[in-house]
Amino acid sequence: MDKVLLSHGGGGTMMENLIEEIFSKAFDNEYIKGMEDAALLFGNITLTTDSFTVKPIFFPGGDIGKLAVCGTVNDASMRGAKPLYLTSAFIIEEGYPIEDLKRIVKSMAETAEEAGVKIVAGDTKVVEKGGVDGVFINTSGIGVVYENVDVSIKNAKPGDVVLISGTIGDHGMAIMSAREELQFDPPILSDVSPLNKMIEKLMTLEKAVKVLRDPTRGGVAEVLYEISKMSGVGIKIYEDKLPVKESVKSACDLMGFDFLHLANEGKLIAVVDRKYAEEALEIMKSDKYGKDAAIIGEVNDSKLVTINTVYGTSRIIDRPIGELLPRIC
Amino acid sequence: MDKVLLSHGGGGTMMENLIEEIFSKAFDNEYIKGMEDAALLFGNITLTTDSFTVKPIFFPGGDIGKLAVCGTVNDASMRGAKPLYLTSAFIIEEGYPIEDLKRIVKSMAETAEEAGVKIVAGDTKVVEKGGVDGVFINTSGIGVVYENVDVSIKNAKPGDVVLISGTIGDHGMAIMSAREELQFDPPILSDVSPLNKMIEKLMTLEKAVKVLRDPTRGGVAEVLYEISKMSGVGIKIYEDKLPVKESVKSACDLMGFDFLHLANEGKLIAVVDRKYAEEALEIMKSDKYGKDAAIIGEVNDSKLVTINTVYGTSRIIDRPIGELLPRIC
Repeated sequence: MDKVLLSHGGGGTMMENLIEEIFSKAFDNEYIKGMEDAALLFGNITLTTDSFTVKPIFFPGGDIGKLAVCGTVNDASMRGAKPLYLTSAFIIEEGYPIEDLKRIVKSMAETAEEAGVKIVAGDTKVVEKGGVDGVFINTSGIGVVYENVDVSIKNAKPGDVVLISGTIGDHGMAIMSAREELQFDPPILSDVSPLNKMIEKLMTLEKAVKVLRDPTRGGVAEVLYEISKMSGVGIKIYEDKLPVKESVKSACDLMGFDFLHLANEGKLIAVVDRKYAEEALEIMKSDKYGKDAAIIGEVNDSKLVTINTVYGTSRIIDRPIGELLPRIC
Repeated sequence: MDKVLLSHGGGGTMMENLIEEIFSKAFDNEYIKGMEDAALLFGNITLTTDSFTVKPIFFPGGDIGKLAVCGTVNDASMRGAKPLYLTSAFIIEEGYPIEDLKRIVKSMAETAEEAGVKIVAGDTKVVEKGGVDGVFINTSGIGVVYENVDVSIKNAKPGDVVLISGTIGDHGMAIMSAREELQFDPPILSDVSPLNKMIEKLMTLEKAVKVLRDPTRGGVAEVLYEISKMSGVGIKIYEDKLPVKESVKSACDLMGFDFLHLANEGKLIAVVDRKYAEEALEIMKSDKYGKDAAIIGEVNDSKLVTINTVYGTSRIIDRPIGELLPRIC
């Protein structure tokens, strides 16, 4: 392996290997290990970063600007923190239309307004035609951890319950349909949305919420594997409990994709103490982005990530290896 | 004007217009106005972001990795803060050699070690061949403002003294010579370096240090204009006091460049209370990156940015308008 491959960016095992081999070893410190979505600094401040290269820049249900704000708002939130401040760094291709740039920036501003975060610092680079494809955006963000919470990818325990805040695979299939010019009726829209308000309400359950994770690249399958690995547990989910839009399911059947591998940009997976599972579900359902929330499985001590199918059989879920769809986010 | 031009990224008036028209208006808040290098949060925490697209990726005296760490370390420092934590987000072109990626990451790790900062969070995206030119890196950073200091682009007062920490234009000319395959003897090396240790020592002068700014894109001229504008003052510098390497000066003469417009990546401009100017100079000179430091001018109430030439005449310094050299950083 002497060259970087697209699959190194796919959010699966190849990306994990690249990060561990090249970045984590070199930047060796207590913060960068542990596969958390955000670094925890000064005891209660979270810091995250994410670059966005999505193609197309405007897609059904959103655009790169909305995605860039939601992505970083959600990353901070998944550590049990209230996101407050974002940075925004643009790399723009020479010749990019000013009108489109304005649309992207307006979309960022509106999304930041909705999420209640401020964009406090920025950077603008312009590169020659062909040096970059359109516009790439990096957002980094700062949040403050809620009091009396302890949310970490390491906290799942056998007996805990697994919830998802809504339908699976919408973003991935929206991007795919836009890129392949597929028509669905109704059209499949990205779920891109800020989840911090939902998480603020979930945090009233305090330590009953053990793990929060947004299933972006690599999808639900990858998140389940990361929880399993970092918490040292197994997870079983139930196919008949999984919320998936009929259109997404049909498109997956047609194209041979597993919706568990598709990216989501407005969903969260929560691992919750069993006693509080129904309460967590009600909180999710009461939020505008959580009406299709469901309890989808449970944590066990098997170390395996399995699914009970609608046919009554059980199988191990495939962990994503590489790139399902480049430039999904 | 309906398309983004290279000159919109050049660090001069066109970039200022683009930022004010498109970004500052949309992200309207008290933090993003004011042209500071870093946002000040929670009273004493600084947050900055910078994307790096330098070409070539490896250049005389440094590489994109060293540049990415120094750039963000220096941005935090210029607000009178001690940089502590950095994020690192890579956008990598499919097919990029793993060996080169390792060199870049090693360079980042070594520079972070020297500067005493930790890289605590990261992101990796891979885009298809042609989607990006090699490797782009974003670093964002957090610092903590030193006690009893008040460093801001708005603080220059008539009577204050202007210092620079070393020779002017080295980075810009190093990139240009690499890109144009020009040979100089001795070769012109980039000055890319972390200035936080020098600034830590300068901060012992407390409020006597009014303004700190690193003259990157747009060079010394742009920084002088920004100080003039934001502090509402004039600045006069003396040509015979300016530290410039003979090789850089000759190359500028040859190519018709003004070294005041060339980018620097390891230099700072300081505006200091006159009573402490000599002390500040001694502190700079005692630092490994400040041995060519000099007092180069003074603040006045003229609102003009002028230079007293070696011929005894005085002229207004041209403010950079657009792109001298794309992808300088």
